[in-house]
Amino acid sequence: MIVEASDTGLAELEHSHVRFADGLALECGITLPSLTIAYRTYGTLNPARSNAILVCHALTGDQYVAERHKLTGRPGWWELMVGPGRPVDTNRYFVICSNVLGGCMGSTGPASPRDDRPGAEGVAAEPWGTDFPLVTIRDMVRAQKKLVEHLGIERLFAVIGGSMGGMQTLEWAATYPQCVFAAVPIAAASFHSAQNIAFHEVGRQAIFADPDWLGGRYWETDRTPARGLAVARMAAHITYLSEQALTRKFGRRQRPDHDAPLDAAPLGSALFGEMFEVESYLRHQGSSFVRRFDANSYLAITRAMDYFDLAVEHEGDLSAAFAGTATRFCIVSFSSDWLFPTAQSREVARALNRVAANVSFVEIATDKGHDAFLLDEPDLHRTVAGFLTGCAEHAGLIG
Amino acid sequence: MIVEASDTGLAELEHSHVRFADGLALECGITLPSLTIAYRTYGTLNPARSNAILVCHALTGDQYVAERHKLTGRPGWWELMVGPGRPVDTNRYFVICSNVLGGCMGSTGPASPRDDRPGAEGVAAEPWGTDFPLVTIRDMVRAQKKLVEHLGIERLFAVIGGSMGGMQTLEWAATYPQCVFAAVPIAAASFHSAQNIAFHEVGRQAIFADPDWLGGRYWETDRTPARGLAVARMAAHITYLSEQALTRKFGRRQRPDHDAPLDAAPLGSALFGEMFEVESYLRHQGSSFVRRFDANSYLAITRAMDYFDLAVEHEGDLSAAFAGTATRFCIVSFSSDWLFPTAQSREVARALNRVAANVSFVEIATDKGHDAFLLDEPDLHRTVAGFLTGCAEHAGLIG
Repeated sequence: MIVEASDTGLAELEHSHVRFADGLALECGITLPSLTIAYRTYGTLNPARSNAILVCHALTGDQYVAERHKLTGRPGWWELMVGPGRPVDTNRYFVICSNVLGGCMGSTGPASPRDDRPGAEGVAAEPWGTDFPLVTIRDMVRAQKKLVEHLGIERLFAVIGGSMGGMQTLEWAATYPQCVFAAVPIAAASFHSAQNIAFHEVGRQAIFADPDWLGGRYWETDRTPARGLAVARMAAHITYLSEQALTRKFGRRQRPDHDAPLDAAPLGSALFGEMFEVESYLRHQGSSFVRRFDANSYLAITRAMDYFDLAVEHEGDLSAAFAGTATRFCIVSFSSDWLFPTAQSREVARALNRVAANVSFVEIATDKGHDAFLLDEPDLHRTVAGFLTGCAEHAGLIG
Repeated sequence: MIVEASDTGLAELEHSHVRFADGLALECGITLPSLTIAYRTYGTLNPARSNAILVCHALTGDQYVAERHKLTGRPGWWELMVGPGRPVDTNRYFVICSNVLGGCMGSTGPASPRDDRPGAEGVAAEPWGTDFPLVTIRDMVRAQKKLVEHLGIERLFAVIGGSMGGMQTLEWAATYPQCVFAAVPIAAASFHSAQNIAFHEVGRQAIFADPDWLGGRYWETDRTPARGLAVARMAAHITYLSEQALTRKFGRRQRPDHDAPLDAAPLGSALFGEMFEVESYLRHQGSSFVRRFDANSYLAITRAMDYFDLAVEHEGDLSAAFAGTATRFCIVSFSSDWLFPTAQSREVARALNRVAANVSFVEIATDKGHDAFLLDEPDLHRTVAGFLTGCAEHAGLIG
């Protein structure tokens, strides 16, 4: 294994990372000759190496969970949850967060130089692009496992994540049950539903439809399929909110320049302009996203989510995926989440109950929709803090 | 008023129509110098001219409600509801359906030649395109009113429609209460919600993002923004179904060529291909739609829906829009419709109750989502047939 620093990721940004020269054999049968995982840690690993919490990020997240983002300059995406005195308390726990396999913030993904065939001497390898093999949630977890081992950690005290991060959390518990003392899958499910696949497909088609995508070879030019990726982000963003949240935030409020009476609307502007505030908000969501995300990564990661189905190896019996587990589970859903509705979390809880697992299940009443896991939800933070503290007592981390 | 036949619409198709040389003054303050309304009728107008039912179509519908479509060759879009012996019984009623103002199946819309300025002699006028003025649901209804008067009908026995057709139905009852004996708004609402505006905006952005849209001037070329329009249709189509319907129809079933084990997936195909059947279905929905719809019409009509809010003229008091109404209402919603949820129909029913209107409200239990109004829903058809028969007795149409 070779650890080295190099320039990777969007905008030639350097990210702390580890490179595994032995690569990773993927579920699809293809082996990545080498594997780079970009990651951040917070807090201190205790001498017993028993206080590590792995935070798994969602589709468009990354490793900058509790610090200013290197590229965007914005606060860490989960500073409400992770930090000193926060539910995932970095004064007590050693927190690890890595960019997922297939991502674009330093870990191996479609934008990484392909190393599966010899290149001409002195010529930089071209990126994988759309030749990047299909990765799965399990592949992401197996890459994280290599990182965790590299850090000298045999067993994680906890794995936690929302949305796709919750899928990884469940996959960790199913694939490495001995290595996960506690698991907190939030706003997640054991499989991706037909409706969710359909929304992802709309996003992918929006990217494919952008001529600047160039069949995935946009990296050969100075262009990116920004318009298609922005439309994908806009469609997805609606699914992260709730009708109530959109109504509360925007309702039918019109843009200031459209607050004039209808008959003052200038000829021709009607079909183009931003008429409602919700439109302006969505357009901003789309345009800011494309500056920090790679389109081919978006394709790869949505595919990984679509493919996720923990029960498929067990003839549809989800409980078999967790047979004999000693992991303690805290499953959290949000009442207004229609992307990963409570019923899907309840299904996971029931499957765990059937194998007599140690599981608690909390549905948090909120009108904020799927995105609630990222937002200021005191009930969520109390739930996670309480669960982790209880587990820490059981694990002997606190006396 | 001049009535003439001419070639209009997609693919130079000829549609039965009436042309009003006196045009139409729109709510936005602009007057269309002339107005063409393409329409179809079924059944026979009785001597008292009292048995007419106006059917209002939805966003992507048209006037071919109960006959093979001239362009697509497919059956009429509401043959389950309208025809001999059907709930809207053409043996008993004279049924009218017109293409909406702003549409693309023969009525005045963005693809119509603009006639608001003198053209060079002998040169065909260019289409309105994105200079087509903002039209509203009320403008659509006022255009229909001209058609109904042209047909010599003073009062409609009934107005019926689903989705945007239900919006028009409500607008008819509010704007011309004396002219509507009975109204059947199905799967509709008195305003377009923030979430629905947001979904429309995604579709519009997908069209804007297509370079073949050419700022709306694609009619100058032989191209159309087909990819953008297809993405818009795909995003919208998801909202017409329900999670249950998608799960029932497709679940996580994979395409035959992807039914092989994961490790047989060929390198590189993963990010592009249709993996799941729901994707193939959506792609088909997108690609077949673009052959029958004009992108600028899609922009115009989605804008009209977004703008719809019956209460806005009454300081938010919806009941004031119906004060003193003598119209009989039958309001229908579907339990799994999340685009126009039951709560929004119930709000209309309550507003009507507050002004002591004659209103019945039916929520039909179905897992088919918003699209249920177009599908084989026996409870829907029984409800409409029963309501219309009862009204026909009250109106003296049957003894």
